[in-house]
Amino acid sequence: MTAAPAFGDALVARVQQRRSQIVLGIDPDPAALWPAAAGTLPSGAGASGPAEAGEVAAAVQSHCGALIDAVADSCVAAKLQLARFEALGEPGRAVLGAVAEHARGAGLLVIADGKRGDIDVTSQAYAASLAHGLDTPFGHIDGLGADLVTVNPLMGRDALAPFVAAARAAGSGVLVLVRTSNPGASDIEDLELRAGGTVWERVAEIVDELGAAGVGAEGLSDVGAVFGATAPEHLARARELMGAAPFLLPGVGAQGGRVEDLEPAFRPGRAAGLISVSRSVSDAHRSLGGDPAQAAAQECERLRSVAWDVSERALALG
Amino acid sequence: MTAAPAFGDALVARVQQRRSQIVLGIDPDPAALWPAAAGTLPSGAGASGPAEAGEVAAAVQSHCGALIDAVADSCVAAKLQLARFEALGEPGRAVLGAVAEHARGAGLLVIADGKRGDIDVTSQAYAASLAHGLDTPFGHIDGLGADLVTVNPLMGRDALAPFVAAARAAGSGVLVLVRTSNPGASDIEDLELRAGGTVWERVAEIVDELGAAGVGAEGLSDVGAVFGATAPEHLARARELMGAAPFLLPGVGAQGGRVEDLEPAFRPGRAAGLISVSRSVSDAHRSLGGDPAQAAAQECERLRSVAWDVSERALALG
Repeated sequence: MTAAPAFGDALVARVQQRRSQIVLGIDPDPAALWPAAAGTLPSGAGASGPAEAGEVAAAVQSHCGALIDAVADSCVAAKLQLARFEALGEPGRAVLGAVAEHARGAGLLVIADGKRGDIDVTSQAYAASLAHGLDTPFGHIDGLGADLVTVNPLMGRDALAPFVAAARAAGSGVLVLVRTSNPGASDIEDLELRAGGTVWERVAEIVDELGAAGVGAEGLSDVGAVFGATAPEHLARARELMGAAPFLLPGVGAQGGRVEDLEPAFRPGRAAGLISVSRSVSDAHRSLGGDPAQAAAQECERLRSVAWDVSERALALG
Repeated sequence: MTAAPAFGDALVARVQQRRSQIVLGIDPDPAALWPAAAGTLPSGAGASGPAEAGEVAAAVQSHCGALIDAVADSCVAAKLQLARFEALGEPGRAVLGAVAEHARGAGLLVIADGKRGDIDVTSQAYAASLAHGLDTPFGHIDGLGADLVTVNPLMGRDALAPFVAAARAAGSGVLVLVRTSNPGASDIEDLELRAGGTVWERVAEIVDELGAAGVGAEGLSDVGAVFGATAPEHLARARELMGAAPFLLPGVGAQGGRVEDLEPAFRPGRAAGLISVSRSVSDAHRSLGGDPAQAAAQECERLRSVAWDVSERALALG
């Protein structure tokens, strides 16, 4: 139905090739850069003056590159937290693009985590910005080229459809927030509906519906779900409602989720669960000690190995 | 409770001073620039080559400046659609900043319309980016300085709280999506809850709760609501649930909403309803004919006058 290869099939191949379901979450906080990157900047004490936005941005880019280089071998994708790059001001978009390129160069898929969602023409503009770029009467403006973008379903189907259409045409995918990993998920997402089920279960049905026409030969769709690892008790139900959706599972580590509890995510196959880890990897040296890169690599490889075993078990059960 | 003056009071003063509740929606589509701005670019036919992203961005900036200059006298605020600026690529953030500055120079409040919302640390980064800027160990990075930012409540209270805290400290405000103007609003926002009411009514209760500590002397809070003008039948109920919230009312014009139906929004006062208009103003020349700037000014002043009369009626009734 489309010229581009199905995203789900490409995802299955990539996970198999890299033997990993680990997604490196990159949300660089200028206050928590690794020393090698932070050391390029004037610090508060004894510095000649505050750094320019461009210098901070360059240090953030250097930090992200070092983080990717340290752990890429254990990962299948990098998830870029757009907020952190936007907070860098004018240089932010160039740094975001450079980090995405660095991740691609290391063999990783790129996930743009912006949780966007708006009326149709606006969602189209976001999709252009994050994925394939914008065609104007005056020429093409490049987009970020993301393989997956996270989107917010509050505004309904017509806010999601432009992202799905853009992804399907480009052979990329979309991840819809279904049940997030934060405490506030209970405020709206968990509300029980008069017609039965919860808000998140209704969103899950929409995910399944939007993804139906985008299921590849390997059984995975180009429309996936963000599902917090902090609510593993709901994971089996989520899988029941969204049989073909790749799940992005944040919340392992700092937020309390455990890889061992995520088995239902992998029932349709090894690539059906992608486990996002951020601070537990980039800050691993704070608990493990030693060099940040070495500690990150060690912790990331440990998580990869646990996840691979959990997915192995899911396949054996399935 | 805070050093900054209450946002609600500043809003009341600004609306009174400008005698307007009209918000100029700025979401520049490179394919629909006014001729004076588009004329600076090579076009498809007969051009020597496609324009660079920087040239398109400059033309967009010029278009936005002309639009603001044409209609500012009839407006109280400008709402910048972040998606359209992000789609410009690397120069996008600088153009966004320049357009915000131009709007401020014309006496307008600036609304950053990005509908963000994420886990706490990420919402903090978005708030920094759009409002007061980011403090780093290496110095301060300027934010956009927006007076209001739109936020998405799907992820719950802890996704909203950082925006509210940042706004309250800076004397600015937050607009929470409650019931949007698009057809898809019925998919999630209108779902009926087992405990009674709808999802949007539950969000409205959260808006009222988060805004309670930020109500100024004039009775308006620093936490407001986005409420589509396309669902005027729900407006009285929304006002009942959120007595102190400023309402941003999109959906007039292209989406079918009518200013005449918005009277309940103004019951707490003239500044309690802000009417967002985008394409109906920037594209007014397509129906009215003539010069785009002149047509936009004429249509915008007509809307201002109708809205002012409607708010007059609301006060008389109240």
